[in-house]
Amino acid sequence: MVPASSRLAINQATVRPQWSLAEAIEGFARQDVRGIAVWRDKLAECGIDRAAAMLEDHGMTVTGLCRGGMFPAADAVGRQAALDDNKRAIEEARAIGAQCLVVVAGGLPESSKDIAAARRMVADGLAEILPFARSAGVPLAIEPLHPMYAADRCCVNTIGEAIDLCDALGPGVGIAVDVYHLWWDPLLEAGIRRAGKERILAFHICDWLVPTTDLLLDRGMMGDGVIDIPRIRGWVEATGYDGFHEVEIFSRENWWRRDPDEVVAVCRERHRTAC
Amino acid sequence: MVPASSRLAINQATVRPQWSLAEAIEGFARQDVRGIAVWRDKLAECGIDRAAAMLEDHGMTVTGLCRGGMFPAADAVGRQAALDDNKRAIEEARAIGAQCLVVVAGGLPESSKDIAAARRMVADGLAEILPFARSAGVPLAIEPLHPMYAADRCCVNTIGEAIDLCDALGPGVGIAVDVYHLWWDPLLEAGIRRAGKERILAFHICDWLVPTTDLLLDRGMMGDGVIDIPRIRGWVEATGYDGFHEVEIFSRENWWRRDPDEVVAVCRERHRTAC
Repeated sequence: MVPASSRLAINQATVRPQWSLAEAIEGFARQDVRGIAVWRDKLAECGIDRAAAMLEDHGMTVTGLCRGGMFPAADAVGRQAALDDNKRAIEEARAIGAQCLVVVAGGLPESSKDIAAARRMVADGLAEILPFARSAGVPLAIEPLHPMYAADRCCVNTIGEAIDLCDALGPGVGIAVDVYHLWWDPLLEAGIRRAGKERILAFHICDWLVPTTDLLLDRGMMGDGVIDIPRIRGWVEATGYDGFHEVEIFSRENWWRRDPDEVVAVCRERHRTAC
Repeated sequence: MVPASSRLAINQATVRPQWSLAEAIEGFARQDVRGIAVWRDKLAECGIDRAAAMLEDHGMTVTGLCRGGMFPAADAVGRQAALDDNKRAIEEARAIGAQCLVVVAGGLPESSKDIAAARRMVADGLAEILPFARSAGVPLAIEPLHPMYAADRCCVNTIGEAIDLCDALGPGVGIAVDVYHLWWDPLLEAGIRRAGKERILAFHICDWLVPTTDLLLDRGMMGDGVIDIPRIRGWVEATGYDGFHEVEIFSRENWWRRDPDEVVAVCRERHRTAC
């Protein structure tokens, strides 16, 4: 088990505009944050070999690669392109030793109003890539996203749905529990228990601000909003989960404008005081 | 059963900045829209007796009074004030012959992060006012709101939760099914079936725009978004529901800026073509 004080990870999207992957690795390590979630565009920019070497040199655990998924598409060509892209993502995740590939399902295909059909495409897509992921030894972490993203980003919107998918798919698939997406769900505690340690592949933290001024880019720092993070963390750790607590904040008007060293420092402080 | 062509109602919030209640009654009736949902501030401005007389003169069915609820509060004084206000709302609903009082539960009390406690306050508040509502003959329509409103507006966020409340409370309580709030829920069809005709007290329509630029005031006209309204309407009517289809659109940058007669005309057209 990672010591409690060392269980902080930061998703590099938290300092996306400020830092490249190399800068994030160095910047996180400089403040002794030894977990990082990596984004594919930043990884490509850095180069996989260089990234893998830097991650190892700095003793970083890669808590996840962001991201696979985005399965629904209007036609077979689009769906195949998504499958191919997911396989590339799995290879990248393996190359940098990521603990999982974070899977964001995708929303409605262009011009579609059929969310049930989109959900079937997600289940089918996951089933297609799963053998490849198993061979690569890369667990797939289905991340249910807040229902406000159902149309354009992710049609898997509750922990219950995500676990149903896991049940249907079998080994090699789990979930990412993100407090931002799930805090409101009255069935969250039961869902976490049902998921169990084996299927909780990642635990993401940030906060829900009141008011929230943008659907996508106004996430808050832990402690600045209304989510009872310690309670949810308690539910997660009651399963036996002993992995990282990964800060993932998209914040165009606030944290993305700050000195990234300050952002890391605040993450460290709030991880101690508000989580 | 109201004839299909006459089942359009409009919530006056759809033309809130443009029209007073008197103007809305006249403007809706002018285009033969005979159902209206009324807001309490507009009702107070008009005067209850005058409003009741105008509604009757124009043959309007009041599909709901908006709104009661808002039960959670930081202290007993605040909770009692909410109960008193709900009783006044029930009296107003009776005075204008509203088919129901729409109940929006309320969010987290000031400084609270305990959504479970807020939900208990909602259940307690409903239980407190229910005898009064029953005596008045005013059904309470619990309206589950989209999870993006859980913190600041309504902590009842799924149809399942709303029906659980109905089950616990007994006769005199039902739900309002609003496609905007519920369209994403994979359990929606089952929830509607479980609610049944007796407990579906209102059916609200509008659309979810992609992108949605404001959490509260960017609802779309039916047909302009991604909600499969005919499908959901089919589920609702399969229960035997034969009431109105009430358009409720909060749209600061679009419909609230248009000529209100045009808004009513578009509601009529889209009710025929997109619902």
